[in-house]
Amino acid sequence: MTNIAEAQLIALDWGTTSARAYLMGADGHIVAERSAALGIMQVASKAQAETQSLDEAFKATLTELCGDWLDNFENVPVIACGMVGSQQGWTEAAYRPVPANLADPAFELASVEIAPGRTMQIIPGVLDLKELPDVMRGEETQILGAIDLAALNADDSEEQLFLLPGTHSKWVKVSGRTITEFCTSMTGETFALLSTQSILSKLIEPAPSANWSAFERGVKVSQSGEGAADLMLTAFSARTLVLTERLEKNEVSNYLSGLMIGAEICSVLGKQATNDALSLTICGNKELSSRYTRALNIFGIDQVRELQGTAPRGIWAVASAQGLLQTPSV
Amino acid sequence: MTNIAEAQLIALDWGTTSARAYLMGADGHIVAERSAALGIMQVASKAQAETQSLDEAFKATLTELCGDWLDNFENVPVIACGMVGSQQGWTEAAYRPVPANLADPAFELASVEIAPGRTMQIIPGVLDLKELPDVMRGEETQILGAIDLAALNADDSEEQLFLLPGTHSKWVKVSGRTITEFCTSMTGETFALLSTQSILSKLIEPAPSANWSAFERGVKVSQSGEGAADLMLTAFSARTLVLTERLEKNEVSNYLSGLMIGAEICSVLGKQATNDALSLTICGNKELSSRYTRALNIFGIDQVRELQGTAPRGIWAVASAQGLLQTPSV
Repeated sequence: MTNIAEAQLIALDWGTTSARAYLMGADGHIVAERSAALGIMQVASKAQAETQSLDEAFKATLTELCGDWLDNFENVPVIACGMVGSQQGWTEAAYRPVPANLADPAFELASVEIAPGRTMQIIPGVLDLKELPDVMRGEETQILGAIDLAALNADDSEEQLFLLPGTHSKWVKVSGRTITEFCTSMTGETFALLSTQSILSKLIEPAPSANWSAFERGVKVSQSGEGAADLMLTAFSARTLVLTERLEKNEVSNYLSGLMIGAEICSVLGKQATNDALSLTICGNKELSSRYTRALNIFGIDQVRELQGTAPRGIWAVASAQGLLQTPSV
Repeated sequence: MTNIAEAQLIALDWGTTSARAYLMGADGHIVAERSAALGIMQVASKAQAETQSLDEAFKATLTELCGDWLDNFENVPVIACGMVGSQQGWTEAAYRPVPANLADPAFELASVEIAPGRTMQIIPGVLDLKELPDVMRGEETQILGAIDLAALNADDSEEQLFLLPGTHSKWVKVSGRTITEFCTSMTGETFALLSTQSILSKLIEPAPSANWSAFERGVKVSQSGEGAADLMLTAFSARTLVLTERLEKNEVSNYLSGLMIGAEICSVLGKQATNDALSLTICGNKELSSRYTRALNIFGIDQVRELQGTAPRGIWAVASAQGLLQTPSV
């Protein structure tokens, strides 16, 4: 606990199903961190079960997560990103429209009282108000963290592509530190539903380990003539290939994963995605990131950078840009 | 019960979640019919719950459904189509490969003993062993029934397209009475999962009645530039359009339905599906059939025929072709 004295920020990455808290010291290094299944969904359930107001339930959850930090560091600012700032969250942080400069010192944070005289700031999400609109909450902060961590975008005019895989994966174009456009694919959530609750799930047997050949086979089908068709048409092959003894039951899950990730890449980047100049950074958990990297490689995209845990760094960058951090008293 | 004396066939359309039984008289008219939620899935659950063999559970279910008919008409043949002939069914009826002549008097039926000295014939499904194989069980019989009912295919060389919407919709090319190729779309099952269990379900409010304008809006998005992308990308708009107040919560379900049915039509027929010569017959329940007809109209396909309840007629045609029907003794 040698660094505790330097604590400068309590940062929260507070999503739908989980909450992560970081105690950050000088220069944004992480002094301590915690995570728990205390996402806004669980908070809402708790509020209902205990007939609390949502505000009370959020206060109690924050105390459960990091009440000791709040007590020990009374003057340290508290700032959060993610779904905690949604309509279903603690308080709504109105979306910022694209183009959204993530490092803009002037954009408005939402704020909510967490104790008498003390507030928590909430970083707003970003809205792309195109014909089929798109929204993100939390991913924008991960991207800013990734840019800082990897010292990307030395040249602010350079365009980069970020992929944030997950329940709803985000593909985000960034110019310098400005999000210019993005889209969302429901791949992760639909994969989970199809592989656990559809007819396909009946044939799925656990794979002994990640079966890359079955995964790659799925990706290649998504690139093929037959794969050109809608995913709804190709997905049924995860059943029929087993029925015709061309796929093992313990390969189904990886095959379907490849099929769906391949279809997503096709949709976003096109079937012939080879673009030598494309700089792509994936921010997400290691296992899922490596799946996307493998699939992207099959599409001819070799320049893929993977980064984990970028959210706290992004929160730090926002806090810094917004002047929330105290100049250390020497 | 005046016609009971003429009973010539007990026909069963026995699927995954329901079973329908028909007592048929001279020329295939339906004397009596019954249906119950006694599909092969429920039979398997019953077998497990009552620690019966699957064979015993199927026998008991058949008795529950139409034991009185079996008793009263001891010499009347019994014949079934559908998932009852699958690996998970009563006994497996090996698939017939395409091209499969539905009226071929020589193709082999499976058979299972339903009582001492008495058997039930089972009509096999059809297999299209292409790169991504496809299978059907029961739909082939509905198609044969449709051809007979509507006196289609007077010219046996004419190619026709059949659509059988449902949990897994089938698009089937038929030449004369021969199935030449087909594909399956998981639209129905995926729609059910997305609209009841995904994040999209959170915003869905029941529609006062079928909302055709929201449905048609979804279909049109599937045809548009943005809709050219994979369904996984467009589906999220069922959420974001509500968040941005461009879609009402009670429109979400119909919008998503239009989006998904439109995407299916795009995949199967292409974005510019207008084909004046295309003769399309939909065999399915009225509500779902009318959705597909509306969507097809938007794609410029106006020649759509809808038929309901074609399975018993198809079973009758198979029984007749196979010489199972007794010549009435005058």
